[in-house]
Parts: sequence; C-alpha cells; structure tokens
Amino acid sequence: MGGEFGVPVTVPATVRALKLHKDLHVSLIGDQAQIDRALAECRIEKLRSRLDVVHTPHQVTDTDKPTAAIRARDRSSLFIAIQLVKTAKADACVSSGNTGALLLTGRHLLKTLPGIDRPAIVATIPGSSRGAYLLDVGANVDCQAEQLFQFAVMGSVLAESLNGQPRARVGLLNIGVEDFKGNEQVRRAATLLENCPAINYVGYVEGNALFDGAADVVVCDGFVGNVTIKSSAGVVNVINSIMRQRMNSNLLNRMASLLTLPLLHQLQERIDPARYNGASLLGLQGSIIKSHGNAREDGFLYAITRAVREAELGVPALIAEKVAGIMTASHLAARQS
Amino acid sequence: MGGEFGVPVTVPATVRALKLHKDLHVSLIGDQAQIDRALAECRIEKLRSRLDVVHTPHQVTDTDKPTAAIRARDRSSLFIAIQLVKTAKADACVSSGNTGALLLTGRHLLKTLPGIDRPAIVATIPGSSRGAYLLDVGANVDCQAEQLFQFAVMGSVLAESLNGQPRARVGLLNIGVEDFKGNEQVRRAATLLENCPAINYVGYVEGNALFDGAADVVVCDGFVGNVTIKSSAGVVNVINSIMRQRMNSNLLNRMASLLTLPLLHQLQERIDPARYNGASLLGLQGSIIKSHGNAREDGFLYAITRAVREAELGVPALIAEKVAGIMTASHLAARQS
Repeated sequence: MGGEFGVPVTVPATVRALKLHKDLHVSLIGDQAQIDRALAECRIEKLRSRLDVVHTPHQVTDTDKPTAAIRARDRSSLFIAIQLVKTAKADACVSSGNTGALLLTGRHLLKTLPGIDRPAIVATIPGSSRGAYLLDVGANVDCQAEQLFQFAVMGSVLAESLNGQPRARVGLLNIGVEDFKGNEQVRRAATLLENCPAINYVGYVEGNALFDGAADVVVCDGFVGNVTIKSSAGVVNVINSIMRQRMNSNLLNRMASLLTLPLLHQLQERIDPARYNGASLLGLQGSIIKSHGNAREDGFLYAITRAVREAELGVPALIAEKVAGIMTASHLAARQS
Repeated sequence: MGGEFGVPVTVPATVRALKLHKDLHVSLIGDQAQIDRALAECRIEKLRSRLDVVHTPHQVTDTDKPTAAIRARDRSSLFIAIQLVKTAKADACVSSGNTGALLLTGRHLLKTLPGIDRPAIVATIPGSSRGAYLLDVGANVDCQAEQLFQFAVMGSVLAESLNGQPRARVGLLNIGVEDFKGNEQVRRAATLLENCPAINYVGYVEGNALFDGAADVVVCDGFVGNVTIKSSAGVVNVINSIMRQRMNSNLLNRMASLLTLPLLHQLQERIDPARYNGASLLGLQGSIIKSHGNAREDGFLYAITRAVREAELGVPALIAEKVAGIMTASHLAARQS
C-alpha cells in the first residue's frame, strides 16, 4: 500500500518479480479490492498459485508518527507484513511505506540480532568505477563508537555475501584522512576496527572519495548518512534542471541538451541514490527491504529482487555468525593477554 | 605560500586584485626570493606602491598539525598574516594554507566576538536558481544548540550584508522536515531560532533541498557540513568522469560529449563547492578568508575580492552588533516576563 503510487506500482512489480524468480511466493498485504483491481490488469494465470492476498483496510501513511504502526498493531499492512517474517511465514518483507514505522515495528517484532544494539539502513552508493554500501542513512541520528563498529560488521557481511567480495574494504566517513580528524565517536570506532582482524578496515574516507570506490562499505551515523545521500541526489537534480534551462537558449546548446538528456537520465539512474532502490534494514532477526517512496515499477522490482537475494543468502544469520566470531575472538584475546 | 600551487598562483592573483580594486593595499607574507621571482613575471610598475612583502622563510604545511602554527609563532607566514589583522595593520587575511592552523591561530590571536563561542567556516552553495551559505563546514565537529544558533546569526549577517538580502531565510539542515526529526542539538536549536524575532527562521532543510534555494543560510555542525560539501563535489566529479568514458563509445555519444563537456565544465564551476572559492571564517574579531587549497588564479582572485568586500562592509562588527541586539532583546524579554 505504501509509497507515492501505492498498489498501481507495487502490484505490477510483484507480478514481474514472480515471472523473474520461479521459486518466489508473494503475500500482498493491503486493501483487497484495490489489489484485485490492479491484479486484474496483469496476466497472472500461471502465477496465481504463488500469490496470496491478506486483506486489511488500515495502512500507516508517510505523515504518521512511527508509533502509529505499533498503536494500530495487527490491523496495519506494515505490521502484518513484518509479523509474517516473525512467524517465519515469510523470509523477507518489502515495503515502500513509512521508514520510521518500518524501523520501529521491525525492532518491536523481530528484535535485533545478538551483539547488535540497533538496526541500520544501508544505501547503495553508485560510483564511477564500482559501487559502495553506505550505512547508516537515517535509522540512528546519534551513534557511539560501538554502534559504528557494528555497522562496519554488518556492512562487510552484506558486501561479502551479496557481491561475493572476499575481503570487503571498510572505511569510516570523516572530514579528513589524518588520525586526529573527526569526532570522538569516529576516532574510537577507528581504534575498534583497527584491532579487529575480521574486518578489512582501510581507514577514513572523505565525502568526495565516497563515489571513487575508495571503500566497499562506508560507515557513518544516520544523520550524516541521510544528509549525504540526499544532498548527492540534490546535486544531480540541479544539473538536470540547469541542463533543461539551457535547452531553451541558443541552437548549439539546444542540440547539446537534446543529445545529452537521455545520457543524463541514464547517469541519474546510476548516480541518484534515491533511484538506486532497495535499502536493507540490517541488524534485525529477519530481512526487511525498504523501497524508496517514489520508486516506480522497475525500482520496486529491484527491491523485491534484493529481498530474494538476501533471503537466499540468509544475510541475518551471516551477520549473527560474524558477530559471534568476533566476540569469541576478542574474548580469547582478552583471556590470552 | 599556501595551497597546492603556492606563490605562482597567489602572486599573479594578487596583482590582478590590485588592478581590480583601486584602493586595495596588499602585504604578501612569505619567502621573499620566491615572491620576487613571481612578481618579476607580472607587470606591476604602477601597483608597486600598494604592495609590500614581509619576508619569512617558515611556513606551515597542509600536513602539519594545527598546533604547529602556534609553536612556530611569529616565524610562520600564516601567523604573521593574522598578526597584521590583530594589530590593525590589515583589514583581512587571505590564505590557502592549512585550515586547522588558520582556525587555531585565528582564535588564538584575534579571539572570538563577544557572544560567539566558536568560529565557523562558511561555504557558498550554488543552486539552480540562487545560492546559499552553508555553515559550519569543518571548524567544529561537535556543536551544541547554542553554537548552531550562533552560526545562524552569523550566516544571516553575511547573507544580509554581502548579498543585500533584507531578511535572509535561515534553515537548519536535518534528516526530515517534521518537528520530531533529527538529534537533540538540532531540535533545541530550532526552538532557540523560533523564539528569536531577529532571525528569519524557515525550519528544517533536507539535503536535497540544499541546492533548491530553500533557504539563504543553512546551519549544521562542522562534521555534517564538511561531508556534505565534499560528497556534493564528488558527485560532480563522477558525472564528469562518466561523461569522459562515454566520449570513447559510439559516434552519437561522442558528439553529445563533445558538445556537452564545455557546458559541464561551466556547471562544475557553478556547482562544485570546492571551486566556488573563498570560505569565510566567521565569529572572530577580524576577517579571515580561506581560499581552497587547489584554487588557481581565478579562485584566489575571487577569495581576495571576498576579503575586500567583507572588510568594506565590516562583517565582524555587523555580527557583534546583531549578537548584542539579540542579547539585549532576550534580556528585556526575560525582565518583562
């Protein structure tokens, strides 16, 4: 039900996902009449056996406070969807709804993994050569060094499992690369990471290096991460709008713009983090994928595919395993010293 | 002496500034032999009377710790330059040297203005319609609400004096526009600003709205601001490099790129905050302008011009005046209640 477009986007995207992933089964949770209407416009005969609808008239809107989802409890589509993950009736939940409500309900129902204090939202940052994962991008406005360290562990598990990178390079977002730069939390997190052989820590990463492939995973608090992805998207929008203004000036600029706009559109899809869809909520005992609120069919399909991959790989279990390994190692190290 | 290029950039830029501003007098502080060599390559006959050189062999490099400038004291070019402002022998100091050293020496010699706890670095953010000032972009990694409030006061004075905007719109950078969003410092700063009639506070501004002209002044802590301007510059660099890659693909893309690259170069100059030169250090009892380390002649000239304007307007005095006015008003309000 969520996002800017709701069922007219999520239902056709789901049908395409069912065609793409032959083992996939999807439960659509929301208003039955609306969903049925959207399904009637798709060719779903052969897919019907892998699709069911759970009716609920209630939904949490984007302007609701996050607590609204908990208050509405098992009547809201968001709550019911996460409940399916909790009761192991679903392997993952995909939603383009209210992020705060998704996080709060996720924590409330699924709980965090052992050794993880708080879940984080991971965004995919595209780059000129290779992409990177940035976390947290909005779940935690204040983070202690221990949380940043946990984000580093979770991010490296994601990069190593999803992308098959054997030793994902992890960096800390900072205002400079020298040791003395940054705030206390970041400097303490650096010490924790330097002393953890299970993490391939590569040091501080500055804002401009974020898109350079300087690291596979970049860690920061949710305030910094959120402002970073949104301002990056803002820059792309400005370039686009200036390009359009130029369209109406002289003939040469008009030609340049006409030839360039399709190219720029491709670039925007590659660079604009808001369009690069499917942000994982990491650190919970279950998979939740947040699709961007203004995602269209392609974007929502991408988010479902991301959920399928995380479920197949069992990302939450992999994180729990890595955390346990690090804890055992540091326990042993402490005993030996 | 500072920056990536040193005297071969700063000296010719100074000569151009002297030609541009007929009342300007410049003292160049640094290695006399190097400066003389660079001056010999410029036509300066008529300008010689408005130019003097203060010789010092010592300079603080970009890799030195900020405290190095204080330790070297009156032997370093950076220290001597700020000393000239302190002793009223100069109205402003322009440097493309070590930012940390500039800040520390500025605070040490000039002191902050009454009512201002810490100086802030202001960057100019270009936008699709109009620009904005963003502060702090790196001087203070941790900021309490009171400091953010002071940044808002300083930023509005800058926008109102430099750009002649009667009631500069001030926003707080945040991860959402709803009241409950953000960290405690930002929410408390919002309350302080809402209760201050002398500031035209317009609310929270998200990262994407930063380039939309949503506010004339946007306030954040130095960690967030630094990462924001650097990552924005990073996005522009990525677009540029992808555009260049395309140059070598098919003929149509090649044509598009050839027509677009000059356009993109203009855009980059307009959008890339690193190129938009001349960051003011606000809040000190004197004007210091930080030129970007990789600025070329045009950039350094721009920074000198900015210093001339701030000196002519008397920006530090205007800030002191506004702070005093706000303090008196809140004092009166407290007595009346």
